[in-house]
Amino acid sequence: MSFAAVDVIRTKRDGFSLSDDQIDWVIDAYTRGEVADEQMSALAMAIFLNGMTDPEIARWTAAMIASGDRMDLSSFDRPTVDKHSTGGVGDKITLPLAPLVAACGAIVPQLSGRGLGHTGGTLDKLESIPGWRASVSTEDYLSQLSSVGAVVCAAGDRLAPADKKLYALRDVTSTVESIPLIASSIMSKKLAEGAGGLVLDVKVGSGAFMKDLDTARRLAETMVRLGSAHSVPTVAVLSDMSTPLGRTAGHALEVTESVEVLAGGGPSDVVELTVTLAREMLALAGLSDVDPAKALADGRAMDVWRRMITAQGGDPSAALPEAPEKHVVTASADGVVTRMDAYAVGVAAWRLGAGRARKEDPVSASAGVVMMRKPGDTVRAGDAIFELHTEEVSRFEGALEALADAVDIGTEYVPSPLVLGRVRG
Amino acid sequence: MSFAAVDVIRTKRDGFSLSDDQIDWVIDAYTRGEVADEQMSALAMAIFLNGMTDPEIARWTAAMIASGDRMDLSSFDRPTVDKHSTGGVGDKITLPLAPLVAACGAIVPQLSGRGLGHTGGTLDKLESIPGWRASVSTEDYLSQLSSVGAVVCAAGDRLAPADKKLYALRDVTSTVESIPLIASSIMSKKLAEGAGGLVLDVKVGSGAFMKDLDTARRLAETMVRLGSAHSVPTVAVLSDMSTPLGRTAGHALEVTESVEVLAGGGPSDVVELTVTLAREMLALAGLSDVDPAKALADGRAMDVWRRMITAQGGDPSAALPEAPEKHVVTASADGVVTRMDAYAVGVAAWRLGAGRARKEDPVSASAGVVMMRKPGDTVRAGDAIFELHTEEVSRFEGALEALADAVDIGTEYVPSPLVLGRVRG
Repeated sequence: MSFAAVDVIRTKRDGFSLSDDQIDWVIDAYTRGEVADEQMSALAMAIFLNGMTDPEIARWTAAMIASGDRMDLSSFDRPTVDKHSTGGVGDKITLPLAPLVAACGAIVPQLSGRGLGHTGGTLDKLESIPGWRASVSTEDYLSQLSSVGAVVCAAGDRLAPADKKLYALRDVTSTVESIPLIASSIMSKKLAEGAGGLVLDVKVGSGAFMKDLDTARRLAETMVRLGSAHSVPTVAVLSDMSTPLGRTAGHALEVTESVEVLAGGGPSDVVELTVTLAREMLALAGLSDVDPAKALADGRAMDVWRRMITAQGGDPSAALPEAPEKHVVTASADGVVTRMDAYAVGVAAWRLGAGRARKEDPVSASAGVVMMRKPGDTVRAGDAIFELHTEEVSRFEGALEALADAVDIGTEYVPSPLVLGRVRG
Repeated sequence: MSFAAVDVIRTKRDGFSLSDDQIDWVIDAYTRGEVADEQMSALAMAIFLNGMTDPEIARWTAAMIASGDRMDLSSFDRPTVDKHSTGGVGDKITLPLAPLVAACGAIVPQLSGRGLGHTGGTLDKLESIPGWRASVSTEDYLSQLSSVGAVVCAAGDRLAPADKKLYALRDVTSTVESIPLIASSIMSKKLAEGAGGLVLDVKVGSGAFMKDLDTARRLAETMVRLGSAHSVPTVAVLSDMSTPLGRTAGHALEVTESVEVLAGGGPSDVVELTVTLAREMLALAGLSDVDPAKALADGRAMDVWRRMITAQGGDPSAALPEAPEKHVVTASADGVVTRMDAYAVGVAAWRLGAGRARKEDPVSASAGVVMMRKPGDTVRAGDAIFELHTEEVSRFEGALEALADAVDIGTEYVPSPLVLGRVRG
């Protein structure tokens, strides 16, 4: 069925629901270039302002999946399950989590992305490991899933190409922060990936796209319903992103911290979230009786990590890049750290070289922020709070500016939970 | 001052007013190509849905004027005054009106446009006159204004180029029917033209962009305020466009009808609106004491018409193109014509060849619809109601389809006024 783009735009502009046929047509025609960027951006703004109903979001997601190929992973003898995070600061959870869940008996097929803005991307982090390749052929992908049980790699051009085009467009037209558009973008990619179950880590707080719990919960509910509509059991965990995760933000720094977690150590918040998400993934995979904490402690997860990195050309024993320039930020008073702002730390890491302004920019593997103190830690004036890492001294100024109001030092610290809630289908 | 396009879009998206600096920047950057079409269309949709305040519309209009040149007509020894119609079916009023007002002592500098969709364009109509040229150099333009007192010609590339770009964009992104965008588009062109006074003919009804009187009145009020804000006295006349104007819709057909009016005859509704608008224009020009009806009756208007056409290369005595194919639509019952739908007649004329689907399409000079009966006329079954003119027999089918429900025949006709109201500054 064929439509005029102006009629589809007008329908949404005037507050009506798009028909299934209109959605199928506009996504397909946009992918083929028949609907122009300026038409899709007008439609995206109309969706941003007038919303979409649940059936519209489900159809929109299905149409984006249908714009490319949907992987079939049903022939494996083990259950498949994946995790997606909406993005945060210091969020290296995928690195220990994927091998951990594979070590517990499930298959983790993760087609991942790169960072944009102040949030870090998983592929950028792994690329700080000498030799490691993000690009894997479909054949190698399936073979590695079978032999190692986990792959974290770049999505190919055939995975929801409509979303790829639309995502880039939304980024330049201020149509990003829309629940229907975010939910359909994430879920089209994750459902096309073919995993049998899906755990979503929906971040809430200054360092996340969703700043408040209500909005994050609505996004989580929308995505969980989309999973159900496509017969993929989906659970969302709402987790705090007002404080950075762990003690590092930056690619090589976060790999090092992840390896500490895989070795049975590491920061307690990273361990807690990794184990929480692993339990949810294992439950979806029908493996509730397996204890992921044990697989971290006894080295099985580390073993899968080393095989996973090696399979993609990386050397898990190689030294990681280290920044030549370091600068220490100290506490201005005695007391206890009561707040450390995730957004500020994310922007600082970005400005030190860890982030990119445009999709095609390179990133610095060694740049980032080490948090020498975290909320709850006591400090004395002059103690180190942050250690900034960069390749270029000129980058310190912008990072210091970002961190100017990043930390509060007070007298009493009230701990707040890391996991804020769960949404189940 | 410089901005990021995404920030300007976000401001309007989130329901805030754009600052003067944001408006100046975005219009200039769009004209220069720094703001992309997909960004401007997202902004246009946000304006469509969230509106603009009066100060925003005034600044937006000023920025579009400033994107090109503003003509200075202050050196003429006679007052300058122009008229703009929001577009309708059978609306040939400019043709008799411009020479009529010039004959009464004012100067009429009309930079005009072409038709799009079911509405006819003045330049297309005049181009059915053998030899007539729409394109006039600035030198010839000023010289003709001085010697003849009236020019109707194409606007150059330097007249509100931002509007030219934005108008084409709005057409393909369903962002046309927005009062702030329509008002600023019309007024930026008309104010850049430099006339000392402006009369707006705002059409209301099925054949117009504004379907109801309230919306038309709001558009009229917005434009009149814009005129005042730019110190150009502006008056709007609200006129009916539920019924086509006159007895013809089509380029050469309407030129012939206009010449009848200039000869002191012609359909009463065309005469009434021409004289009404002429009186408003003459009042703005300080020539209230001149009676335009007299200048039509005594041939002075016809004299200016002939000189105006001749000055632009046309032969006012030449035979106009006539369509080779004609088809008569007859009445199905006895009675009185109680309704004739302007939109249906406009679409029929368009499909017969008078209109274009894209800006670059050619039009047929001879195609169109002759209304053998109008509302209020009595008919017998089998009497001719429409005569369809075209160059291609294959076009009759689509025109007949458009006219299927165009006419009601009943027992009693209640006349309705042509002029529905006025808005003064």
